[in-house]
Amino acid sequence: MTQQDFPAGEYEQRLERAHRAMHAQQLDAMLFSTEAEIRYFTGFRTLFWQSPTRPWFLIVPSQGKPIAIIPEIGAALMRSTWIDDVRTWSSPHRSDDGVSHLASCLAGMSRIGMPMGRESTLRMPYSDFQTLRHSLPGAEFIDVSGTMQALRFVKSPAEVEKISAICAIASDSFENAASLFSTGQPLDDAFRAFKTDLLKNGAEDVPYLVGGAGPGGYADVISPPTATPIRDGDVLMLDTGSTLQGYFCDFDRNYAFGHADADAAQAYRTLYAATEAALEAARPGARCCDLFEAMAAVIGQTSADVGRFGHGLGMQLTEGPSLISFDETRLEAGAVITLEPSMEISAGRIMVHEENILITDGPPQLLSRRAPEELPIIR
Amino acid sequence: MTQQDFPAGEYEQRLERAHRAMHAQQLDAMLFSTEAEIRYFTGFRTLFWQSPTRPWFLIVPSQGKPIAIIPEIGAALMRSTWIDDVRTWSSPHRSDDGVSHLASCLAGMSRIGMPMGRESTLRMPYSDFQTLRHSLPGAEFIDVSGTMQALRFVKSPAEVEKISAICAIASDSFENAASLFSTGQPLDDAFRAFKTDLLKNGAEDVPYLVGGAGPGGYADVISPPTATPIRDGDVLMLDTGSTLQGYFCDFDRNYAFGHADADAAQAYRTLYAATEAALEAARPGARCCDLFEAMAAVIGQTSADVGRFGHGLGMQLTEGPSLISFDETRLEAGAVITLEPSMEISAGRIMVHEENILITDGPPQLLSRRAPEELPIIR
Repeated sequence: MTQQDFPAGEYEQRLERAHRAMHAQQLDAMLFSTEAEIRYFTGFRTLFWQSPTRPWFLIVPSQGKPIAIIPEIGAALMRSTWIDDVRTWSSPHRSDDGVSHLASCLAGMSRIGMPMGRESTLRMPYSDFQTLRHSLPGAEFIDVSGTMQALRFVKSPAEVEKISAICAIASDSFENAASLFSTGQPLDDAFRAFKTDLLKNGAEDVPYLVGGAGPGGYADVISPPTATPIRDGDVLMLDTGSTLQGYFCDFDRNYAFGHADADAAQAYRTLYAATEAALEAARPGARCCDLFEAMAAVIGQTSADVGRFGHGLGMQLTEGPSLISFDETRLEAGAVITLEPSMEISAGRIMVHEENILITDGPPQLLSRRAPEELPIIR
Repeated sequence: MTQQDFPAGEYEQRLERAHRAMHAQQLDAMLFSTEAEIRYFTGFRTLFWQSPTRPWFLIVPSQGKPIAIIPEIGAALMRSTWIDDVRTWSSPHRSDDGVSHLASCLAGMSRIGMPMGRESTLRMPYSDFQTLRHSLPGAEFIDVSGTMQALRFVKSPAEVEKISAICAIASDSFENAASLFSTGQPLDDAFRAFKTDLLKNGAEDVPYLVGGAGPGGYADVISPPTATPIRDGDVLMLDTGSTLQGYFCDFDRNYAFGHADADAAQAYRTLYAATEAALEAARPGARCCDLFEAMAAVIGQTSADVGRFGHGLGMQLTEGPSLISFDETRLEAGAVITLEPSMEISAGRIMVHEENILITDGPPQLLSRRAPEELPIIR
């Protein structure tokens, strides 16, 4: 019924790698409640996660295929994936939203992995998780955040293809800037025009679009747009996480209107050079902190605001690891990351520059089309 | 810097109602980690929640204004809201992503409310929450899921205005169906055309768009679209959660192509009548289960798949309560709900019909423009 995002072989390989990692940690099973992890192992893709009402679960046993324990409303879609064992209940439920299903599936196991560390969320009622723990007195829950990060960090060629395609679509739309944006245009209209252009160019969805505009720079990189018109001398930044079959791009572009403020133009050059330094350093074996230091050395300051200069990218807008001083994760061929140096231009004005790259055995491959060397001006 | 979604008075009223509820539960504070709850009390609105990297916290003490404990990257935006006390740290952090800030803010408190029940998520690493609990040995954590549902269920006039506006925008786009959709059009193109039209009509975002198409009915209501062309005799359903300043509509429409299959046309009439019955029953004091029973009586079957016939609506695509057999929540003037009866047409073919309404002291006010009485046909 549903189009498969990948052939079954993709999921078999993911499961095989997971089984090896679980064996090393002597896990009996892993338990997941979150969208990306469940989709990673099953291919179950739906926007229905927008509704907080129902919990969804996946159990990956140390041998054999994953077991889906999900609300009946998702049964048809889950049964269209490569998963065979789909256990359902009518949800919402008066008193037992999947917990007894989980308990019987996990009964007798002693070491159960669950993401409990950095970047993780427990997407089920906390009280239900306590009920589950009490019903499994012999079980120890073990954090697998690092395990899952390592598995997901290195992308398959089929995953890279999807990320590459959405990066190309966003690059096309950014190149249309001169026809989409103009002085006097309210910022929220600029956002709408850009979003519409992304859809026209083939993006399936635009879950993330933020930005800012201000004289010679912007104050903030996470705000929604206001109706304030773009003015001559403004620098506009748009940052999009658009998707294709559930895979994200995540990069931004900067544009000056009318003329380029000298400080902004210089900051742009600095961030461009910082990105070049990171591209030089981005080789298998290099650590995330090495790339951070390579960029920080060019910039000569580190923005406390943003806290990092890039991150993993794929099924989520941001994935671990982080390009930050303390992250010693080593790059591997097949990893996809963002390079995202930022700096303060002056008090309250910042600039962010971003590219998406694939780590290879040689120099990295740019997935976003490289930004122009000089701050582009829209007249 | 940022446009405020509401004047400060709106948030003061929310806080005052929360303080009364907290007093009744003898709570010293409430702790939140999730988007809707933090936005409800602060007005902090950003798509940056798409990134799972950083945790965000809000503490609502039993007296005085809320305290935001958030990553530095959000400081500028949070300081533009009505919140005065904004405590930040550089996140991601090597070892302490906000936990010591939380511990010192909550030190000495004995009864701390946190959503732990139905529809809730712990949006912070589980291990960090355990660290927090251990650092507060005298504190008891108390579930406030029901408390928060009761507070958010009844909307202010300013909230209703936003929901009403986005419902009108989506109604406009649904009325453009004949010019947007056609036989032979791939389903994913139909989705894209509809999304673009929503943006053109003034929707700020379309976080949710699902649907299906099939001969005389569809199999599934949560799947993403395939490239399969719409065929003569198909019934197409599109269901959108579009937004305006962070407030959702959530309703669907059905269309037949070429001609209306007799069973589909009859199911449509049944669901239309079920909705009429719910509109009759939807008065202050009626229970959610009463509306469910009113619809079930017309339909003569209850779909185990969907599990309920409607739900709360506002800052999220779906909010509690649920129109379901066991939910005894009483309607109140100012509550906004969806009426969403569904039924099986035949094995593997279902239909869903949905409206959004405001409960008033008299008959409910339709926020979505009422669907046509007969299944519309696109020729």
